[in-house]
Amino acid sequence: MSYNAPLKDMLFVVNELAGLAAIGQLPGCEDATPDTVEAVLEENACFCGEVIAPLNHAGDKEPSFWRDGQVTMAKGFKEAFRGFADAGWQGVQHPTQYGGQGLPKLVAAPCMEMLHGANLSFALVALLTDGAIEALLTAGTEAQKTRFIEPLISGQWTGTMNLTEPQAGSDLAAVRTRAVPQGDGTYRVHGTKIFITYGEHDMAENIIHLVLARTPDAPPGVKGISLFIVPKFLVNEDGSLGERNDVQCVSIEHKLGIKASPTAVLQFGDHGGAIGTLVGEENRGLEYMFIMMNAARFGVGMEGVGLAEHAYQGAVAYARDRVQSRDLAGSSGPVAIINHPDVRRMLMSMRSQTEAARALAYVGAAHSDLAHHHPDESVRRDNLAIYEYLVPVIKGWSTEMSENVARDGVQVHGGMGFIEETGAAQHYRDAKILTIYEGTTAIQANDLVGRKTVRDGGAVAQAIIARVRETEVALAERQDGVDGGDLAAIRRQLAAGSDALGAVVDFVVANARSDVKGVFAGSVPYLKLAGIVLGGWQMARAALVAQQKLDAGEGDAAFYRAKIGTARFFADHILAQAAGMRHAIVEGSAGVLALYVDQF
Amino acid sequence: MSYNAPLKDMLFVVNELAGLAAIGQLPGCEDATPDTVEAVLEENACFCGEVIAPLNHAGDKEPSFWRDGQVTMAKGFKEAFRGFADAGWQGVQHPTQYGGQGLPKLVAAPCMEMLHGANLSFALVALLTDGAIEALLTAGTEAQKTRFIEPLISGQWTGTMNLTEPQAGSDLAAVRTRAVPQGDGTYRVHGTKIFITYGEHDMAENIIHLVLARTPDAPPGVKGISLFIVPKFLVNEDGSLGERNDVQCVSIEHKLGIKASPTAVLQFGDHGGAIGTLVGEENRGLEYMFIMMNAARFGVGMEGVGLAEHAYQGAVAYARDRVQSRDLAGSSGPVAIINHPDVRRMLMSMRSQTEAARALAYVGAAHSDLAHHHPDESVRRDNLAIYEYLVPVIKGWSTEMSENVARDGVQVHGGMGFIEETGAAQHYRDAKILTIYEGTTAIQANDLVGRKTVRDGGAVAQAIIARVRETEVALAERQDGVDGGDLAAIRRQLAAGSDALGAVVDFVVANARSDVKGVFAGSVPYLKLAGIVLGGWQMARAALVAQQKLDAGEGDAAFYRAKIGTARFFADHILAQAAGMRHAIVEGSAGVLALYVDQF
Repeated sequence: MSYNAPLKDMLFVVNELAGLAAIGQLPGCEDATPDTVEAVLEENACFCGEVIAPLNHAGDKEPSFWRDGQVTMAKGFKEAFRGFADAGWQGVQHPTQYGGQGLPKLVAAPCMEMLHGANLSFALVALLTDGAIEALLTAGTEAQKTRFIEPLISGQWTGTMNLTEPQAGSDLAAVRTRAVPQGDGTYRVHGTKIFITYGEHDMAENIIHLVLARTPDAPPGVKGISLFIVPKFLVNEDGSLGERNDVQCVSIEHKLGIKASPTAVLQFGDHGGAIGTLVGEENRGLEYMFIMMNAARFGVGMEGVGLAEHAYQGAVAYARDRVQSRDLAGSSGPVAIINHPDVRRMLMSMRSQTEAARALAYVGAAHSDLAHHHPDESVRRDNLAIYEYLVPVIKGWSTEMSENVARDGVQVHGGMGFIEETGAAQHYRDAKILTIYEGTTAIQANDLVGRKTVRDGGAVAQAIIARVRETEVALAERQDGVDGGDLAAIRRQLAAGSDALGAVVDFVVANARSDVKGVFAGSVPYLKLAGIVLGGWQMARAALVAQQKLDAGEGDAAFYRAKIGTARFFADHILAQAAGMRHAIVEGSAGVLALYVDQF
Repeated sequence: MSYNAPLKDMLFVVNELAGLAAIGQLPGCEDATPDTVEAVLEENACFCGEVIAPLNHAGDKEPSFWRDGQVTMAKGFKEAFRGFADAGWQGVQHPTQYGGQGLPKLVAAPCMEMLHGANLSFALVALLTDGAIEALLTAGTEAQKTRFIEPLISGQWTGTMNLTEPQAGSDLAAVRTRAVPQGDGTYRVHGTKIFITYGEHDMAENIIHLVLARTPDAPPGVKGISLFIVPKFLVNEDGSLGERNDVQCVSIEHKLGIKASPTAVLQFGDHGGAIGTLVGEENRGLEYMFIMMNAARFGVGMEGVGLAEHAYQGAVAYARDRVQSRDLAGSSGPVAIINHPDVRRMLMSMRSQTEAARALAYVGAAHSDLAHHHPDESVRRDNLAIYEYLVPVIKGWSTEMSENVARDGVQVHGGMGFIEETGAAQHYRDAKILTIYEGTTAIQANDLVGRKTVRDGGAVAQAIIARVRETEVALAERQDGVDGGDLAAIRRQLAAGSDALGAVVDFVVANARSDVKGVFAGSVPYLKLAGIVLGGWQMARAALVAQQKLDAGEGDAAFYRAKIGTARFFADHILAQAAGMRHAIVEGSAGVLALYVDQF
């Protein structure tokens, strides 16, 4: 099995860091007892490992293909999707009234991680369908919900998000697709959408396209965009399928990675106009799409974690197996390369960043659950603010991290990593999309700077940093004696990290208006700094819990010791970069903006 | 044209930083006058841009292929190789007595960079042939030199290096290929070699394989390896071709990148034994191979620089062209994305690292020229020591850097970067081999720590750092007045960098014996630190020269201002990482070595 879900670490994070016990007591989350959650994750792990992961490399070698407007999925995908849907995995986090399992996001997050980890190309259909369900739940009419959500959850149909056009990538103000009302409650949609993930395939009876378009009288820019349901096959009132709609897949892209997932160019309305129905109100499409996108951005963060874990596992397996050169400390013959310090360094880098990003994401999921289910409105509001701060960090940092991890995964394999058959190269290729789609890292960083930091004067950011400092105090209170102890070393780097992050937040807030370009010149470094500090914070919390367990003689000592060692690595190798990043952000804009365009 | 050699920067570095004037006065280098060198580089730039670069993307899409033991090269390669050879480009740095141009390495380096920058897959045949020529020049008999070198320089034949076997990658002690003396001065060679770049192709009449193998009585390990010439076609005494030798290409690899360059599995001796002749003495093969490898390692460093430059140019072109979103400082409509600060940051990162690595490599080449041609033996010795210190840094850091640059190149393209047609993805795939072949970055770092730092107690390293400090003094002496000036900012980061590097060298020397694994746990970070500090040093030197030129009102002011701005970026964004790296090296081994193998 090429991918084994890291259940032990997942459960540790879910229970010890993200506080499942508290989440399971929220109204509507009562089913999420520790036992149930463990059983759900175990079952999902089995399914992902046994059914989904084996299709990953094969789907890369023989991708899905397009002919005459039809896409034939890579071998095995159709059957696997049926198994996925029938087992109810599409519905983990969706309401029971539409056939979902109604579990909290804290449970959905590890499920997502496993699915993405097992097979990124496969998992994308679920991610996009989740997004469509979220948008309909938020803004759909009751009739729309009834008609569309249940078949999306059951896997009878799948969903897509149609934002991008050739001239409108990150800039949705430039969307041109038109939707003309017909007077009967429907619209005729005309336009071209590109980069539509699973925009066409043969795994389900119908595809529900959610499409951004402009009505004839819409104002220009993002305030004139509406959201439409444009199904591949029209849906009758009784839910049965009607005629083929006027939307055609004219090609799919030849991509660097995620080759088994078809990325479609969709042509709407070449034969009279595709029939669409409005979701919510006119001109509020972007707002609804952001609901999908925020859910999808969190999901892409989980893609980063899952892919990194898969790459890590492959590298560990190879490093255990490959025998080459003597041990530096002396050996009679060549040893497995996992014994060589630089291989060890790469594996620890891969491992520690993956664990940190996982912990940050699951903790974020718990904040989302609190934000949606807690009875106290002020608790909901505070948690929502924290969650919203974390989303661009989880998306941006986990995916940037996953690129580095995938790179190290190839490097551990040496020359064999460059040969496609080992699978390491596939992770390297697949990873590259994660920092691009659902908003590039720069777009996440814009969100982090603008909406999440400057808008509230840095209040939420500083509130989170105050929590980091509580962990530093807890570390300092642990009398692990010698200065060279792991917890002491972790505390020092965490303190340096939180200082750097605090200073950067102050800098961003103070200068965002007076020196907008100077601040945004450091936006991505700020996002990465937030990632390593908040990820490092979770690793520090994990080390504290692990030390408590060890002191109490509870549980698996080897696991807890490894957790402390991994946190130590993260502190000295990853967190230690914080001061340099602070410098680049606070002092670095002169260099970024030094050249005129002509000088490049 | 997708690749334009950056002639202006190349000539700036060659003349102002690497000191062509002094090199051109060395015995044997008199042809290398500034005018001649400029003419040579201009001509090479034309050839690479017009003939070689256009084959790069096409060769990736429709790679070379294998059938029945034959490799058919990607379209256009054969004709281009003829043009390359006929124009004399294979012979730039080789002796005139064998048909070479006898130019110094300082001229060969930019020529290599251009060829690699234009088309990495194509350039590899020249790189490997260079290596074969070097080895024969060093260890071949007069008869071997006469028979083999001239046709290698003329491009009638090409050369290969045969080191790797399935069980012997980085660990050449494990080489098993056998060479049995026949009593007539020849040997019969039997064995399997893998990852043989251009091990088979149809561009030249013959292929001269240089093969590591063991004679029957050879001692075990690396001290029992000999080097053999095993031509694809036997060569008669008059230089004409004889029978086909018993070496077969049984397959080529399906690789992540450099797809147009065939990477062969070669089977020697399946039909009685391939006929080989010894190069130099028995059991000294590794020593000779290191000559090839050192030349090749420098060459791979130039591959990193060339690829990074090509990726940078592609990203700049896209960023100028792609219009998306308004300017942050306000604009009436969308602007070219080169105006967005994060795009600018990525371009500056790509540019500054490429320029720094270029400068470091060319300066290294000048040290090599001084080491080989200076009349004073002590000058030769000192320069050789510096050059040898720099080789693993040039190889390791330039290639690691090129991966990051290629990544940023994709990122600047956004979603289009993930589509193969833009070419950005090809750079990302191609770059990944550079940190692996000719010794992984870890192998370079082992060399840097062991042979280049510990062996002389850090003397050469500290001597180089003393030169860095001279540049800091020169920067401090420049009265550019305000503290916020570019030169002052550069000086501060350079000083922090040289402090960090000095401390790390001390740490490595002090602990290499008592804590060998602890030191090697930081070997790659040490190599990268050396790269950014010494690269940053060259950028600082460049900024000083540029400021002098500006003060004197000489030359192209825009170029010099851009140079200072680029150096400033490098200081605040790249050099600023030095202290964190120092921490990871000096304090980071506990984390690297924290886990037992079973805990992974």
